[in-house]
Amino acid sequence: MDETSLIRRIRGRTTRARGLLVGIGDDCAVYRPAGAREDLLLTTDWLIEGVHFLRDTHPPGAVGWKALARGLSDIAAMGGRAKICLLSLALAPWTTEQWVTAFFQGFRRLARASGVVLAGGDLARAERLACDIVVVGSAPRGEALLRSGARPGDEIYVSGQLGGSALGLATRRGAAWQRHLRPEPRLRLGEFLRRLPATAAMDLSDGLSLDLYRLCVASRVAAELTGGLPVFPGASLDQALHGGEDYELLFTVRPGTPVPQRRGGVSLTRIGRIVRGRPGRIVLAGERLRPLGWDHFLRRQS
Amino acid sequence: MDETSLIRRIRGRTTRARGLLVGIGDDCAVYRPAGAREDLLLTTDWLIEGVHFLRDTHPPGAVGWKALARGLSDIAAMGGRAKICLLSLALAPWTTEQWVTAFFQGFRRLARASGVVLAGGDLARAERLACDIVVVGSAPRGEALLRSGARPGDEIYVSGQLGGSALGLATRRGAAWQRHLRPEPRLRLGEFLRRLPATAAMDLSDGLSLDLYRLCVASRVAAELTGGLPVFPGASLDQALHGGEDYELLFTVRPGTPVPQRRGGVSLTRIGRIVRGRPGRIVLAGERLRPLGWDHFLRRQS
Repeated sequence: MDETSLIRRIRGRTTRARGLLVGIGDDCAVYRPAGAREDLLLTTDWLIEGVHFLRDTHPPGAVGWKALARGLSDIAAMGGRAKICLLSLALAPWTTEQWVTAFFQGFRRLARASGVVLAGGDLARAERLACDIVVVGSAPRGEALLRSGARPGDEIYVSGQLGGSALGLATRRGAAWQRHLRPEPRLRLGEFLRRLPATAAMDLSDGLSLDLYRLCVASRVAAELTGGLPVFPGASLDQALHGGEDYELLFTVRPGTPVPQRRGGVSLTRIGRIVRGRPGRIVLAGERLRPLGWDHFLRRQS
Repeated sequence: MDETSLIRRIRGRTTRARGLLVGIGDDCAVYRPAGAREDLLLTTDWLIEGVHFLRDTHPPGAVGWKALARGLSDIAAMGGRAKICLLSLALAPWTTEQWVTAFFQGFRRLARASGVVLAGGDLARAERLACDIVVVGSAPRGEALLRSGARPGDEIYVSGQLGGSALGLATRRGAAWQRHLRPEPRLRLGEFLRRLPATAAMDLSDGLSLDLYRLCVASRVAAELTGGLPVFPGASLDQALHGGEDYELLFTVRPGTPVPQRRGGVSLTRIGRIVRGRPGRIVLAGERLRPLGWDHFLRRQS
């Protein structure tokens, strides 16, 4: 049972609900409350000790920051504004009061910077520390960016530089390690892309090759990468193509859309184009690029 | 660090957000989207292996049912209608495909019965199985039932019978065990109480003594219990007063409000009244009743 097939099974039997515009399969669910001028974006993300972070190497402030960053990045991917969040937190026997204080310092630093307010959650004790973050964002009616909007001819872009988080995890040094510890959710960029408008967007959490594959499958298109990938200084091409947790944005625009080279201090790089073809098929320099990102269920680079 | 003081610390530094009507400290957060005719209710609840359920004694269908029931019960407590849910699920190494299938059968059975649709979530692998359920519900603008609305003179009621879940956990037999495994969230009753209207409500998840204490603290009032508690057949008074996980509703009404003896097959029993006094002070038959429900952080009946 890999993650994709498990999601397919869960999704397969899902029924419709009044007001639910987008369900399982995108970065957020999209819900339209009766009479509302805004659509609500809802996302939830795990951060579990021993799986997503290690107690010995990840400082508590970074764990708090990252728990929230993972949810905010999903809101950014849909061009939304983050509003409120709920945090489910299970503390482990080793957790000290000092650790919890530092965790919340990191959490609040990012919350303040992003204009999101902690509005609830649940607390428990467990063997291993686990966080599940819920973020609620909003976008003007019908304007949320989806994974499914890419069309043949669209240009493919990524923000920032890729592979930094994977490099940081491998070396635990310097700028790459900081990038791994405290990723910057691209909320302002997401809102810019919504107004541009981009035709499709998602965040890069599991590696470009796997995430672009998912975007292509959702849009029922193929992709050709042209090279010229913005690789994080010191990272390998492999890390840039398949490394997870960069939390940059992957997006597509109609050809000719004026995309600036930088926006809010973040570079925007054209890396290829959407083509007709078998959904999810990606070609790089004439060769098939397989989706090798992280799959929790295969417990390996899939 | 007990749960109450941890929540107080987290809550203490919380800032306000536009549209957030109720934040940390009630059964749900209440958020009003711009222009909406309905207020949204948001809640999240853990269900963790070894903490909230045991792998060997809890059938997978009951685990799926209960994961959702815990969230739905919070929506019921505020008089809301359940709309959509998100499920974060971390599967353990021991989890088989058969287990997952049965889990979702139980989950979907309750989802269908409650009119709630699974709209997203997150999947991971972890050492122990963990679920975190997010339920989004709605209530007409300004009508959500809060913990904080009880006033001196109000009559205190509970739905159903108390102590059944604690008895079931102790004996693992008969109706009490079924009640522990598959609690019925009181969604219809909650909507009835909203229209009645009740002045305050919450669900009984951690035991009457602790939950009534919390309602009284939120409302800044005290309470006198008159006895005549609806005890689940076979349960002790101790189990009825302090046992958790009954998921019945505790509510207050202005004196003279016509509360029926039963509603939708569920009994409604008057158990006391709200009085002036030190917030949270509860008296039963002339004696002080201490809040002895479950506290995750003291790892004991507190």
